[in-house]
Amino acid sequence: MRDVAVIGVGMTKFGRFPETSFEDLGREAIMNAIHDADIKPKEIEFGYCGNVYGGMCMGQRVLKEIGIADIEIINVDNACASGSTALRGVWYAIATGLYDIGIALGIEKLTNLPPATLVPPGEDLQGEMGMVFPAYFAMIMRKYMETFGTTLEQVAKISVKNHHNGCLNPYSQFQKEVTVEEVLSSRTICDPITLLQCCPTSDGAAAAILCSSSLARRYTPHMITIAASVLRTGNFLYTQKDFTFSDLTANVAKKAYEMANVGPEDIDLCELHDAFAINELLHYEELGFCSRGEGGILIEKGETEIDGKIPVNTSGGLLSKGHPLGATGVAQIAEIVWQLRGKAGKRQVKNPKVGLAHLVGGAVTDIENGACTVHIIKK
Amino acid sequence: MRDVAVIGVGMTKFGRFPETSFEDLGREAIMNAIHDADIKPKEIEFGYCGNVYGGMCMGQRVLKEIGIADIEIINVDNACASGSTALRGVWYAIATGLYDIGIALGIEKLTNLPPATLVPPGEDLQGEMGMVFPAYFAMIMRKYMETFGTTLEQVAKISVKNHHNGCLNPYSQFQKEVTVEEVLSSRTICDPITLLQCCPTSDGAAAAILCSSSLARRYTPHMITIAASVLRTGNFLYTQKDFTFSDLTANVAKKAYEMANVGPEDIDLCELHDAFAINELLHYEELGFCSRGEGGILIEKGETEIDGKIPVNTSGGLLSKGHPLGATGVAQIAEIVWQLRGKAGKRQVKNPKVGLAHLVGGAVTDIENGACTVHIIKK
Repeated sequence: MRDVAVIGVGMTKFGRFPETSFEDLGREAIMNAIHDADIKPKEIEFGYCGNVYGGMCMGQRVLKEIGIADIEIINVDNACASGSTALRGVWYAIATGLYDIGIALGIEKLTNLPPATLVPPGEDLQGEMGMVFPAYFAMIMRKYMETFGTTLEQVAKISVKNHHNGCLNPYSQFQKEVTVEEVLSSRTICDPITLLQCCPTSDGAAAAILCSSSLARRYTPHMITIAASVLRTGNFLYTQKDFTFSDLTANVAKKAYEMANVGPEDIDLCELHDAFAINELLHYEELGFCSRGEGGILIEKGETEIDGKIPVNTSGGLLSKGHPLGATGVAQIAEIVWQLRGKAGKRQVKNPKVGLAHLVGGAVTDIENGACTVHIIKK
Repeated sequence: MRDVAVIGVGMTKFGRFPETSFEDLGREAIMNAIHDADIKPKEIEFGYCGNVYGGMCMGQRVLKEIGIADIEIINVDNACASGSTALRGVWYAIATGLYDIGIALGIEKLTNLPPATLVPPGEDLQGEMGMVFPAYFAMIMRKYMETFGTTLEQVAKISVKNHHNGCLNPYSQFQKEVTVEEVLSSRTICDPITLLQCCPTSDGAAAAILCSSSLARRYTPHMITIAASVLRTGNFLYTQKDFTFSDLTANVAKKAYEMANVGPEDIDLCELHDAFAINELLHYEELGFCSRGEGGILIEKGETEIDGKIPVNTSGGLLSKGHPLGATGVAQIAEIVWQLRGKAGKRQVKNPKVGLAHLVGGAVTDIENGACTVHIIKK
């Protein structure tokens, strides 16, 4: 397999853009990536597009807008992991020599989603009775706090950190500092989860242009390569065996570390799936950044802040940057690439060499079989 | 690249099953394929699922039902070409050695689709004004008939043929012979296209299990391999240059013939995209089964009937077997595999060695950038 480089990344600001079309969002992200890679649209040989709710053939609809047609385009859906699944598709086709240059897109509009598109009626009986994500994670949060003595304040500090990082990222949906007190006193969504511990409803798009490493020097002085790409399906919530630890993320991360020949101690920054504040804390442990039960201490000590031992969600994460499902996985890669280039502005991590991107996606109708991706990016 | 074999295929009957869940449809198709391959579910290492309208993570939801979890699953959407895109994904991952054994699924339920899931309001302005598929193909049909002197009766004969074939296929949605007179006197959908020249609204699922050819003998005495897989995006309707000939299908077919080292004269049977009767006629020419303008003569002479020179849509095609979008591409492969094994019952083609499957998919919002697939299957 050939080495594959990320030569250009781009995104839109994430936010609420109900009047902007999918095509307009996609075009902006793609053009940003194309300018970043200093490449001609015609050089792009194929594309994958991650999208969940936009209707059929999203990649074709969006790429046509900038004159990219007559190529192979595949649209993928793995829920929240759709963008990272698209990235994996492009990586694999280049690594195996099918193509030399490709584009991974992610795009989503959630603000004006017709309710009927969520799940056809009758297909999600548990959901209709109230067992939706905040309910699951509220139970997990209670159990975790009870087991390990983690405090509400420690969990809230994750929101504080990510909203702080978002203030340093012009692409972030929110650009406003919040305090622990504000997080805890914001509206209760499902006790103990409050509004400011939840990611928002977002629209946005992101794009990454990949090519074989042997060609990358034509386009960029930064040799940033994908050292690992792993995608597995499994129980994406938490098993009865251990309600507060996901084997899925742990197993996928283990495979990715082996593939990249690194360990969690080598990761210089991480973008992970903080759909709720508690999720980030759980993922610290599953990804190996701290021992079991010590997630609360890790955040308490500031180790996951930008100047900490293992900066997490420097972009603002899903909590602050936003979470337009299909776009999130590609936007994570944009953040890691900017960081590895040393071009992340006020949120720059000091001289990072290895970044990790993690997402978990699952249907609300089936919590037992979701998709998890881990990508490790190196310079 | 390794040779890849199709070792098991299965499907549900296509039809209207509004009370049957996606999961139930999927399970039936998968179990049929698993029994056909005489394989254990645990041996399946990964899967692709083609689906357009069922909501997120369809492959995960369906495969979990038969205990297949903890594997890589990717859901793909390329509109009507979603199932064939899934097939291509499985083929490519095995051909390149990433996995040895995988499953391609296609599944769709269209009968109780909430209207809002079609396209978000405001995203398809032309469609809202009436420019939908029957309108396009009615114009194309008129232009074609005017240019080449093809008659209404010749086009109707395609419906007659495919409904006849459907009567010989227990999986076909329709099991009823129709006459040219009945086709032409059925309700006008968009003049000159009548109801019996349109594919129906369908539910259904199909599955195909693929493995490296070196392992195939473990499972089956039939060595049936994928000799070509091509997917491209392009103008899937017809250009102003020539309103009655699609370069997209012609180019994709050309690439597939080169890849399989065969020509149209070597194809012993073909499953192609007869969403409307006129489409089948146009594809005859684009796939090289006859010269330009001679599609009407080909059907008139009976050359595309089961005992003709190049049998087309022996399964009944979309017109009679039905068209549950995501499932169609996988069901085409099932038909070709049964034919190549000599197990197609009353619709068996005499000793076929090479089959071709063709689909074209495009968003109703973007007729200029659809997906086209051609697969060539050999024994």
